[in-house]
Amino acid sequence: MKDTIPAITTGSLPASRKVYASGNIHEIKVPLREIAISNEEPLTVYDSSGPYTDPLSTVDIATGLGEVRGGWLQARGEIEEYDGRSVTDADNGFATGARLTPAFPVQRPPLRAVGDRAVTQLAYARAGIITPEMEFVAIRENEGRRAAHSRDGEAFGAELPALVTPEFVRREIAEGRAIIPANINHRELEPMIIGRNFKVKINANIGNSAVTSSMEEEVEKMVWAIRWGADTVMDLSTGRNIHNIRDWIIRNAPVPIGTVPLYQALEKVGGVAEDLTWEVFRDTLIEQAEQGVDYFTIHAGVRLHMIPMTAKRVTGIVSRGGSIMAKWCLHHHRESFLYEHFDEICDICRRYDVSFSLGDGLRPGSIADANDEAQFAELRTLGELTKIAWAKDCQVMIEGPGHVPMHKIKANMDEQLKHCHEAPFYTLGPLTTDIAPGYDHITSAIGAAMIGWFGTAMLCYVTPKEHLGLPDRDDVKTGVITYKLAAHAADLAKGHPGAQQRDDALSRARFEFRWEDQFNLGLDPDTAREMHDQTMPAEAHKVA
Amino acid sequence: MKDTIPAITTGSLPASRKVYASGNIHEIKVPLREIAISNEEPLTVYDSSGPYTDPLSTVDIATGLGEVRGGWLQARGEIEEYDGRSVTDADNGFATGARLTPAFPVQRPPLRAVGDRAVTQLAYARAGIITPEMEFVAIRENEGRRAAHSRDGEAFGAELPALVTPEFVRREIAEGRAIIPANINHRELEPMIIGRNFKVKINANIGNSAVTSSMEEEVEKMVWAIRWGADTVMDLSTGRNIHNIRDWIIRNAPVPIGTVPLYQALEKVGGVAEDLTWEVFRDTLIEQAEQGVDYFTIHAGVRLHMIPMTAKRVTGIVSRGGSIMAKWCLHHHRESFLYEHFDEICDICRRYDVSFSLGDGLRPGSIADANDEAQFAELRTLGELTKIAWAKDCQVMIEGPGHVPMHKIKANMDEQLKHCHEAPFYTLGPLTTDIAPGYDHITSAIGAAMIGWFGTAMLCYVTPKEHLGLPDRDDVKTGVITYKLAAHAADLAKGHPGAQQRDDALSRARFEFRWEDQFNLGLDPDTAREMHDQTMPAEAHKVA
Repeated sequence: MKDTIPAITTGSLPASRKVYASGNIHEIKVPLREIAISNEEPLTVYDSSGPYTDPLSTVDIATGLGEVRGGWLQARGEIEEYDGRSVTDADNGFATGARLTPAFPVQRPPLRAVGDRAVTQLAYARAGIITPEMEFVAIRENEGRRAAHSRDGEAFGAELPALVTPEFVRREIAEGRAIIPANINHRELEPMIIGRNFKVKINANIGNSAVTSSMEEEVEKMVWAIRWGADTVMDLSTGRNIHNIRDWIIRNAPVPIGTVPLYQALEKVGGVAEDLTWEVFRDTLIEQAEQGVDYFTIHAGVRLHMIPMTAKRVTGIVSRGGSIMAKWCLHHHRESFLYEHFDEICDICRRYDVSFSLGDGLRPGSIADANDEAQFAELRTLGELTKIAWAKDCQVMIEGPGHVPMHKIKANMDEQLKHCHEAPFYTLGPLTTDIAPGYDHITSAIGAAMIGWFGTAMLCYVTPKEHLGLPDRDDVKTGVITYKLAAHAADLAKGHPGAQQRDDALSRARFEFRWEDQFNLGLDPDTAREMHDQTMPAEAHKVA
Repeated sequence: MKDTIPAITTGSLPASRKVYASGNIHEIKVPLREIAISNEEPLTVYDSSGPYTDPLSTVDIATGLGEVRGGWLQARGEIEEYDGRSVTDADNGFATGARLTPAFPVQRPPLRAVGDRAVTQLAYARAGIITPEMEFVAIRENEGRRAAHSRDGEAFGAELPALVTPEFVRREIAEGRAIIPANINHRELEPMIIGRNFKVKINANIGNSAVTSSMEEEVEKMVWAIRWGADTVMDLSTGRNIHNIRDWIIRNAPVPIGTVPLYQALEKVGGVAEDLTWEVFRDTLIEQAEQGVDYFTIHAGVRLHMIPMTAKRVTGIVSRGGSIMAKWCLHHHRESFLYEHFDEICDICRRYDVSFSLGDGLRPGSIADANDEAQFAELRTLGELTKIAWAKDCQVMIEGPGHVPMHKIKANMDEQLKHCHEAPFYTLGPLTTDIAPGYDHITSAIGAAMIGWFGTAMLCYVTPKEHLGLPDRDDVKTGVITYKLAAHAADLAKGHPGAQQRDDALSRARFEFRWEDQFNLGLDPDTAREMHDQTMPAEAHKVA
């Protein structure tokens, strides 16, 4: 069945039902998941899976999800519809005829800020306004709790309130410590927050395959990832049909979608890094902003003078974006257009509220290169860019490594907090050793759990296929579950006031041999149930 | 093919050959594995897999492995052959006829110390004697290196010399900081060392299945586990045929074999904990010592007054040994026979050099119960018992938890070092969250890597089936590889002078797209190669 399932996976998770909490300030409906337990009150947990797990919701990917935020956006009175940019052949990698993925059937005119207003959550937060998005995430973070469950932990300076209030969310955003990636053109979005004073989040990457990909397949990859708990999804597609496939994904995505616009820009210039121009890049930003991309990875921190710092590395520059920009800088012998035009990039982002994910183009690609001069030089530049973006009311998070042995992980968090002024950190792993290809979801889960504990706000997942090939459906699920458990281990260690509730419920079920409850309370009920069945087939064995 | 492979897995690992290093003091042949690299010098790595991966070695499990230590033992002149204890029906769980696993074909009279001598590595080390075992492990730990490769790390007080010398080994053993589990009746053993100033080791558990098990299957489980890197193997069999199967395992085991003698003793009294007696237990210790078991888990730290401390726990007492002893203590309302006769247990162990693995019968079984009063009360008792065992020249390591959130892991190591006088720590995981049944190899690898970094000397593996069922062949491999990578991540973080060499070799191969070298240098070449092939079938794609 692998890799060829076109249908969209829907339906509840075992013993679970979707419940919706209401707002006090705004008319909002916040989705949560309630897990039934045989002899206890149900447990309510965070739920990023969207309408796909609500049996009362009808899913038709050709229509897209219903608008969650439409009314909220209009109510602010600062946005306008306009005739967007026209789609060009280049946007789809010059795919034509049968090779062209059909355009998404429902096309709306895009929204943008009126004049040069900033319509970002940061701008509203600074103005003292609690948006519906802020109240939404506040309710979501509390998972139906009315009080703290346990407070034991070491939070390394993070401030985790017993209950998250909308005002707390506003303050965290106003101070730059958290972001709500929420492009005004992504009206289907169920808002979520990324910041170290909130639950640790995880991202899953998806992307089209060179061999085969239909829009159903691509949408299903996203749906599958969020079913198991991905909080955001990055679409890293390359090649043909990027524009149309992205449209299909965003229109069906209840989670924020991130991209690396540089990848598409490169396709537009035939894959030749040196031929990239600010104009092509700028056009790509607007294209994607109009579609509703919620955050952009921008590798503006790669500066010309840093490139020689990588010369003695064991693995040079491993970030794709980083190596594209390094090539460009060396060829033209000048600072990159990303760095030089960063102001203008901010001007685009503030009009749509696209958040920045400032890319770590010089991240280490091996244990040997961890925490070196190049990496930290770039980090300091990312801190400078953060200030520029904040001055423009843009939301910012910072990307981090990569490959780091355990004893060097804490320094990454400390340096990031120091140089990037507490903007949220978003790391890939890090992998804590390089000697286990095929198991890099695990080598990196060790680093991810630790850096999440230290304060990283979002963890980018790694699948077993990392360094080896493209993840299939099973790999994506394994990667997501592995990162959910790492993020949860981090929440527990930080002393997140609600985290241990689920561990305790599962432990009680374990102690009382309530097998079904154990399965249902776990991150992956299906796998747990199946593993148990393998060696204890009879129903009788499961009771007592 | 799963679960039904009777043949023993033999043959080299990919691109690898077995090499043997010689001693300077003793006539010894220390096995190492040399991995060929396409454009570099070969890399020599630690090799626990025994003669099974040496194509020049003939394997016949009915004969057993050749004697490695026979001559060494005789040379000391302190041991004697004697008529051992007779095997009884109870030893094999009263299995008879077709149900009785055949006895191992070659039966030798057992060895013991002459008179009341202590023939332990500790006794020799204290006497200033460098045994062949000590020189063997010294050479083994250096993995063919002649100098330190890298020294970057945070060792938390561990002392990691650039090169391990036999004298360093002797001193570490003399001071109780390391053990060489090496029963004088396990002559087939390739000695290895467990201590925080050496490479972090891992243990794999095996055990017969109630449904099916032949001696070939049980031997193969051990061979399979060491092929992937298990440094010791614990035989946790219960039920029928325990004695005979253990004989088959030990006679074919190049690694130390550990057991929990209480499990077999319980079988001898029909599974009724209250009926256990010192006499039955003592008889079991002698039975297993004569067979060559290298270390015994002894739950002597469970004291009567501690049992009420577990009353308010979420998961009570989860250690099987701990709950057997708690039951016994409560029923008889007295201290356990393990505690009361600990002196006599030492007298047995010193005659055969069976090492102690002091069991943590009150270890936490959930995040909620971590680091509680019961756990630490027992730990302090284990420290007292350590002193008693040391006074008798017995080698000791200490078992640790279990289930511990990240922020409470360091305290486990600190308390253990303090109360157990730096005796080696041997932990199960710990699992850092309880919400991922089916993924507990990963929840625990996070904790294992961290506690290994902090100073734990050996990590007991956890498989994906933990809490759910019996591991099959794939689960065992997954568990072993997961723990190898965790142990290696710990070595890297401690700054083990040789550890990063393999990471660097693999990273260079990665940077240069030398796919075959990447696979071969990884912990699991077969899986890496297979994953790569799935998405990039053509050979052409693999080059460049």
